[in-house]
Amino acid sequence: MMTASSAPVRQSSVRAHNLALVLQTVANSADPISRAAVAAATGLTRATVSALVDDLIAGKLLVEVEPAPRSGAGRPAAGLRLAPDGPAGLGLEINVDYRAACVVDLTGRIRHRLVEAGDQRPVGAGSALAALSLLATEARRRAEADGLTVAGAALAVPGLVTGDDTVRIAPNLGWLDVAVGELGGLPVAVDNEANLAALSELGTGELPPSFVYISGEIGIGAGIVLDGALFRGVRGWSGEIGHLAIDPDGPPCRCGARGCLEQYAGQEAMLRAAGAATVADLAAADLSTAGHALGTAIAAVVNLLDVGTVVLGGIYAPLLPRLRDAIGAEIDRRVLTADWSPVQLRAASYGPDAAMRGAAGAVIRGVLDDPAGWLARTRA
Amino acid sequence: MMTASSAPVRQSSVRAHNLALVLQTVANSADPISRAAVAAATGLTRATVSALVDDLIAGKLLVEVEPAPRSGAGRPAAGLRLAPDGPAGLGLEINVDYRAACVVDLTGRIRHRLVEAGDQRPVGAGSALAALSLLATEARRRAEADGLTVAGAALAVPGLVTGDDTVRIAPNLGWLDVAVGELGGLPVAVDNEANLAALSELGTGELPPSFVYISGEIGIGAGIVLDGALFRGVRGWSGEIGHLAIDPDGPPCRCGARGCLEQYAGQEAMLRAAGAATVADLAAADLSTAGHALGTAIAAVVNLLDVGTVVLGGIYAPLLPRLRDAIGAEIDRRVLTADWSPVQLRAASYGPDAAMRGAAGAVIRGVLDDPAGWLARTRA
Repeated sequence: MMTASSAPVRQSSVRAHNLALVLQTVANSADPISRAAVAAATGLTRATVSALVDDLIAGKLLVEVEPAPRSGAGRPAAGLRLAPDGPAGLGLEINVDYRAACVVDLTGRIRHRLVEAGDQRPVGAGSALAALSLLATEARRRAEADGLTVAGAALAVPGLVTGDDTVRIAPNLGWLDVAVGELGGLPVAVDNEANLAALSELGTGELPPSFVYISGEIGIGAGIVLDGALFRGVRGWSGEIGHLAIDPDGPPCRCGARGCLEQYAGQEAMLRAAGAATVADLAAADLSTAGHALGTAIAAVVNLLDVGTVVLGGIYAPLLPRLRDAIGAEIDRRVLTADWSPVQLRAASYGPDAAMRGAAGAVIRGVLDDPAGWLARTRA
Repeated sequence: MMTASSAPVRQSSVRAHNLALVLQTVANSADPISRAAVAAATGLTRATVSALVDDLIAGKLLVEVEPAPRSGAGRPAAGLRLAPDGPAGLGLEINVDYRAACVVDLTGRIRHRLVEAGDQRPVGAGSALAALSLLATEARRRAEADGLTVAGAALAVPGLVTGDDTVRIAPNLGWLDVAVGELGGLPVAVDNEANLAALSELGTGELPPSFVYISGEIGIGAGIVLDGALFRGVRGWSGEIGHLAIDPDGPPCRCGARGCLEQYAGQEAMLRAAGAATVADLAAADLSTAGHALGTAIAAVVNLLDVGTVVLGGIYAPLLPRLRDAIGAEIDRRVLTADWSPVQLRAASYGPDAAMRGAAGAVIRGVLDDPAGWLARTRA
């Protein structure tokens, strides 16, 4: 079916569209790309491309680099790539046993990374956020010392978020209806940590368009990616895999129910079962109970959603070799279609940094999607 | 962001588009609607609308009806509505303990309904399909005796389907890799029964755009509707809720695992637990075990997908008053967000006919979406 004809397009929105088109063409190119090649890829004239590129360079979104010398004849054209010293994203995370901040530049590189370990539960939301705000200020100061401009901030939390800035509930932090407000002098977009981590894994370009990312921390969350986009659910509260019932008569959970996955495969449950003091000790422990519980939950996800790939992040990523047999056994036993279509289990690329990297990436994504907005803000 | 300009539009596809637009405008109108009102709603000229309407009437897709007499001045215009005696959909279903066929006309009314009770397991796929083919032939004969033209056929099965015509696995029927072929002399599109039932419930227009439909039969399936569209999963195998683990050490299931939902809340398990001989007897039985198991599975679905409405179909629909307390207790206990956003439990509108009605509806949907194709076929 055709759609109804679109509304008339104004000049300013044509420019905004073309700026984004040029910027994303450069961003999607593995190597530096010439203005002529951008023109060819976009269908815009060379003159238009050059004018737009000049604006993007002036706004510190693109840089022009000398090409590698070639042995053939002719002078090779200068190439464009994303600017490493323009806008940056400030990614923040608060989790049960640490708070963290990172600065990610337009090329996706982490430029600064600040992590403070420590139990966030006893201090309460106000103090935890105040301490995180100091960390954010320090990260921002370091970014600016590098000549970067922090374009925005986003915060990853292990809980359910409403309205872009309020943590509705984070059971493992003991937070209820916490409005985050500004951190480090910047307004902050708040999102679930598993959602943001899933987005950072999607950004690697190495995963199929549909997968489920499972973050193992003290809590367990899932980010569901369907057809290349995060699936958030009706109210943005999807992915609460940590509270799937593994055994209805199992041990009590902090959420009030019994036998939730977190009570078998959460970090504290795993440490307790192994008699281990630290996560590092788990690398030598028998993780069979956690693995079977995780496999049962993953089988439920695959039976319901029919995704073929599951990415294990957080503490699960380095432990996957020790968890794989038990998870695989439950998948083989419980997924109706496992015989035809084996489920791929993969360790996350980014480990414990995935969520804050995803938070910073969400800021960067906003700049790449709307460079005209960024240029207007920097001129103001 | 704008999208790239679309390819040139040919005259024939403009006509196809406008035919569908006019037909759907009439279909979406609660009352008969005049040609002038169709023109106003679509933005097409009256002359264009009249020419398209004449074609749709000639093709038996629309009829013109006399308006109800009005007391005011002026002659009221004749109204258009969908033709009740044009194309019809043949909906077929094979389930564990019955096979069935129905004919649904363009207005959505069931015109014929044929159900043969009987255990389909001992007879095997070939015999069951041969018997269903006879039923399909009889339904088609009755439709044609009414002056209807059967536009196509679709089959609902309690299992996983590949490639539109092959049942990959239907554990409760004992079917494995069954190619369906023609039934009643017609090619048949095969789909999962819960998917088709969910589509027929969506078609009532009384549900929010996102919900999960759960069909209770001997097996238990789910149809997941997100933002007004069926979510099928990567390979079309989503919704296998019947094999969610309720208790990992529970009774063995026909699928090979233990403690699946079907072993607590499937029809046979419910009859066994209640010491009942027929489904009708369940109306007076204690359904607590089934209700708690179903509630645990529903809590998992809501925690993962964040849908706010669950529709209970099949044998669950009439039993919902007796199941509601136990289901509700598990939702309250296990769904993290139940305090802010209670989950709505609703009985399905169509009961046991939902799946075959959805199958017939899929055929009707095809005609409404592409009336030009239907007109070309009837001319040929």
